[in-house]
Amino acid sequence: MIETPYLLFLGDAPDMLAAKVAIGIRDWRPDHAVGQICLPGCGADLGLTEMTLAEAKAAGARTLVIGVANRGGVISAAWKEVLIQALEMGYDLASGLHNLLRDEGDLVAAAQTHGGTLHDVRVPTVGYPIANGENRTGKRCLAVGTDCSVGKMYTALAMDAEMQKRGMKSTFRATGQTGILITGHGVPLDAVIADFMAGSVEYLTPDNDDDHWDLIEGQGSLFHISYSGVTMALVHGGQADALILCHEPTRSHMRGLLGYSVPSLEELRDVALPLAQRANADCKIVGISVNTQHLSEDEAVKYLAETEARMGLPAVDPYRHGAARLVDALAAI
Amino acid sequence: MIETPYLLFLGDAPDMLAAKVAIGIRDWRPDHAVGQICLPGCGADLGLTEMTLAEAKAAGARTLVIGVANRGGVISAAWKEVLIQALEMGYDLASGLHNLLRDEGDLVAAAQTHGGTLHDVRVPTVGYPIANGENRTGKRCLAVGTDCSVGKMYTALAMDAEMQKRGMKSTFRATGQTGILITGHGVPLDAVIADFMAGSVEYLTPDNDDDHWDLIEGQGSLFHISYSGVTMALVHGGQADALILCHEPTRSHMRGLLGYSVPSLEELRDVALPLAQRANADCKIVGISVNTQHLSEDEAVKYLAETEARMGLPAVDPYRHGAARLVDALAAI
Repeated sequence: MIETPYLLFLGDAPDMLAAKVAIGIRDWRPDHAVGQICLPGCGADLGLTEMTLAEAKAAGARTLVIGVANRGGVISAAWKEVLIQALEMGYDLASGLHNLLRDEGDLVAAAQTHGGTLHDVRVPTVGYPIANGENRTGKRCLAVGTDCSVGKMYTALAMDAEMQKRGMKSTFRATGQTGILITGHGVPLDAVIADFMAGSVEYLTPDNDDDHWDLIEGQGSLFHISYSGVTMALVHGGQADALILCHEPTRSHMRGLLGYSVPSLEELRDVALPLAQRANADCKIVGISVNTQHLSEDEAVKYLAETEARMGLPAVDPYRHGAARLVDALAAI
Repeated sequence: MIETPYLLFLGDAPDMLAAKVAIGIRDWRPDHAVGQICLPGCGADLGLTEMTLAEAKAAGARTLVIGVANRGGVISAAWKEVLIQALEMGYDLASGLHNLLRDEGDLVAAAQTHGGTLHDVRVPTVGYPIANGENRTGKRCLAVGTDCSVGKMYTALAMDAEMQKRGMKSTFRATGQTGILITGHGVPLDAVIADFMAGSVEYLTPDNDDDHWDLIEGQGSLFHISYSGVTMALVHGGQADALILCHEPTRSHMRGLLGYSVPSLEELRDVALPLAQRANADCKIVGISVNTQHLSEDEAVKYLAETEARMGLPAVDPYRHGAARLVDALAAI
């Protein structure tokens, strides 16, 4: 559990693309961010109040979150200066970088001296159990994709936000570093030891109120050779009552796999549902989330209408048109 | 790579059941074992020559392999005495125990002093790549099961032995601790980090001669909630040309999962083949391996004949009747 609220560290981010984590926090948990802090040359601006470490501290910030990717795979001296100052002032640090904070001797020393915590969210800190497959109370929804990076996290976050707005009981359950930094907790599933993957998903989505929904962040794809095992653990460990199929219609091949075509939504449905029903016989596919960022508005509307008619399921782009119809579908089961 | 030949350490094994690893080595790689060494009170006997450390050393032994499960989750003082003596005499040690040799300070110290290596085969020592899904030369056969512990390792070892006997080119590829200790190398798949599972299987089964077969040891089951992600990584990383379906017909439920029924061979076929064809479009199911240990000879013969007729595939128990017909089926594709 990462202590909130955060001050978002943008460092010397060359552009907004590099600040994906910070943008996610600003968009989905605005209450978690008291402000932003940049270094000279920063090309990213979240539109939040620019603050010094002292100003943010006075505003209540507990954790300095590295909201940006670093360059060249090192934590630079310029970054270090701010990070160490933050520790000296009583901040915790949180990071999803490949370079771990805990591998930097000066950060470890400063954290020890000042009683701060270094959160490397890429690394599991829990000894997860082996999955037991027992029925859990509460309801769970899992986003599964035809490919990686098609909008599964966005879909789950958008549905959670819509459910909160309606006063429904819901929790977004993060399974990747960005999601963990956004919400402050979760399971870094891609870094879990093979035998404990499904168990870590059970751990993440425990018994809950009968009318509570966990919106589980998906990972990988059952059709992606490199990561399908991770997805499978989500499908079985998640014990989902509802699946959302996620798709990006302009991909020419699977992400990172030139020779591999992207499956159709029908193929995804036919593979994912029987597997999910192994863990929860009542599991249903309730809707389709399409990432239409590379389509014009007209093309998007047409594609969604065609997909909805063909699949017999509500098909929406939650980024473009909101997640309301996906939540309607969830609420109806 | 564990140096052969071995001296097999049976310790104070209460019975033969506890000596599963040593039995596997004796049965499948008899040339790897110069003899056995017991402690007082040992209830296991492999029928190999009982040797002192010095006698085995003179006979060429390079590694003392712990061929037995330990009691109570500790490496006892009585064991330690022999293990440290072995290191002093220049042996390496190899173990698949949950307690790691490397966590025992006195063993680490003795290994350092005498230049020995401690092989804990439960723990990966390689930085595996992320799977790239590229086509590999050579042929690969994977055993997949309706459940865990239905005879997948035995099936692959028996097929490899039969192929060697026929002068065919084949290699058994171990993916679990027992298999790794039997052959001296492999990937401890259940201990690999999630993102690298499929890549570790690609690493284990690289390009090879066009007429060479890798017999890949299966793990878990696509239908076993706890471990299906591991199996999925094998199915996609293995890029199999041929699958063998493995089954134990008397199970009343999945191993360790009381509420879960065991799927039929038809269900396994219908789930496993399309998934495997994602990695290798030409993949075929070539045969069925049935573990008939709980059936009488008459029952077994009848069950196998009925299964063969129903599935349209050769169905054998390789333990009872040999793996020849499974190898015939492989050779025919």
